Amino acid sequence: MSKRRGPRSSGAPDARSQILESARRSFAESGYDRTTIRGVARDADVDPSLVIHYFGSKENLFAESVELPMSPELFIGRIFDGDPGGAAMAERLVRVFFEVWERPASRRPLLGQLRVAFSTGQPPPMGEFVFDLIVSRVAEHVTGPQAELRIEMAAAHLLGVAMLRYVVGMEPLASVSVDELVAMVTPRIASYLESG
Amino acid sequence: MSKRRGPRSSGAPDARSQILESARRSFAESGYDRTTIRGVARDADVDPSLVIHYFGSKENLFAESVELPMSPELFIGRIFDGDPGGAAMAERLVRVFFEVWERPASRRPLLGQLRVAFSTGQPPPMGEFVFDLIVSRVAEHVTGPQAELRIEMAAAHLLGVAMLRYVVGMEPLASVSVDELVAMVTPRIASYLESG
Repeated sequence: MSKRRGPRSSGAPDARSQILESARRSFAESGYDRTTIRGVARDADVDPSLVIHYFGSKENLFAESVELPMSPELFIGRIFDGDPGGAAMAERLVRVFFEVWERPASRRPLLGQLRVAFSTGQPPPMGEFVFDLIVSRVAEHVTGPQAELRIEMAAAHLLGVAMLRYVVGMEPLASVSVDELVAMVTPRIASYLESG
Repeated sequence: MSKRRGPRSSGAPDARSQILESARRSFAESGYDRTTIRGVARDADVDPSLVIHYFGSKENLFAESVELPMSPELFIGRIFDGDPGGAAMAERLVRVFFEVWERPASRRPLLGQLRVAFSTGQPPPMGEFVFDLIVSRVAEHVTGPQAELRIEMAAAHLLGVAMLRYVVGMEPLASVSVDELVAMVTPRIASYLESG
């Protein structure tokens, strides 16, 4: 188990892509929660500090491994900074959701993850990632009976709209602007987050 | 193009399955709308009257070809008989939707149709069938601005809940009773059908 301390330790051009390859394999096989920086480093035969050096955190490593075109911190901040009240947070959540889907560069890996979920019947790694970074933080602001079920209903609604708009291309849903989508969906998402 | 007027015309045991096979092929390749009794009969090399004799209508032919375990008339009646007002119709629509999904015998072909939509990016034949028989009739009772978009939003919501419950198996959504589902989803579906 000797580390390859030759070309790799000096940050050889292929160390970064070797780490990404190991990360993709681990996220796909073990899921998001059970993937660790240490495990990815071991598999890529590099020191864990090199993974941190290149990617900073497990969240960012995941984001790059599925080719998310933006840093998770960026959209997390946009959802949770500001008024934590149900309606305001619901609007930010809905807007960020559709803005991520609108970018072809992020839509492609998202569709890939949904296909994996469909063909295997298993939640995709993206699901755990979204859960850990977004759903669990939304949950901090949702109270009352059946809070967990109501959050899942809100997620189900957003997922269904994404399917009809981006997979099936159903009209007029596929052609309306993001502003129109946000205006129509937000009150229903807010009603799930605010009450049972 | 001579009809095989030997064993087939007397209702030979394989005429019915030959019709079903032709129907499945046509629904899959041409979609629901462009499939005709006449075309299926031609492809199966039987007289159109034999298709009517066995299946009664295109709706029933479709239902049998995708192995729906109940006659379309049955659930159509349950949705549209009774008070056509938004909230009451919304509850019947949501209840029938989940009751169909709850039956393993109908869930299997429904999941198959969703997989087709995912892998081909095309709306599945089931989509047109649902549209012609259900969505277009729901639309008769939905008025006001963006009625079509609101109906699609309601459909998107139901689809998303079905995905999380029956495909992903997300808890607690996958384990709550149909009554709980209906109680939670109906007000949001009703709000789409009643106003913009």
